Amino acid sequence: MTTDQLSATFAALADPTRRAILARLATGEASVNELAEPFPVSLQAVSKHLKVLERAGLISRSRTAQWRPCRLEAAPLGDVSAWVERYRRFWEGGFDRMEEHLAELQKGEHDA
Amino acid sequence: MTTDQLSATFAALADPTRRAILARLATGEASVNELAEPFPVSLQAVSKHLKVLERAGLISRSRTAQWRPCRLEAAPLGDVSAWVERYRRFWEGGFDRMEEHLAELQKGEHDA
Repeated sequence: MTTDQLSATFAALADPTRRAILARLATGEASVNELAEPFPVSLQAVSKHLKVLERAGLISRSRTAQWRPCRLEAAPLGDVSAWVERYRRFWEGGFDRMEEHLAELQKGEHDA
Repeated sequence: MTTDQLSATFAALADPTRRAILARLATGEASVNELAEPFPVSLQAVSKHLKVLERAGLISRSRTAQWRPCRLEAAPLGDVSAWVERYRRFWEGGFDRMEEHLAELQKGEHDA
């Protein structure tokens, strides 16, 4: 089964360690060892997280430098932002929607 | 294992059918049957998707109306937006970052 890009991005972000790795990379490139340091998990576990992030296109790893630094690739995050923006009016317009909802109920549209 | 709220939200969004359900609910409340109609999956599969969305706080289901309509709950999407906003400069500043990266390479900072 192929996974669409946006689903792969959301799945990659559904883990606090992976989000912390992205936050670290937002401050600059880092080696696997540097990324692993703050986490109470094995280097192997961190490598696995990096593979998930790399497959989702959220990080890249240098092929040239010997220490193979990881680097944030933010394009998929732009796609997440574009997707979630469509719903902005719903989390910002809480009260308006409640009124609208009550108005709909009063019209009795849902009695059918 | 407990999952943090943001991870639960991202995991719930990592599926095209669940995102399509949210898009449908953005146009108004809907019953499970109405939500299932456009999808080539069983009613049972849709119910499972709705449970994932409900656990993540992305939808609620009326306890009073007999047809138990599903309703979009957008607060977790606001959290997603707030999280992803922190990275905006990275996907918007593509060219600047490339220049910055090249400048860093030229300084030879990574040869150590």
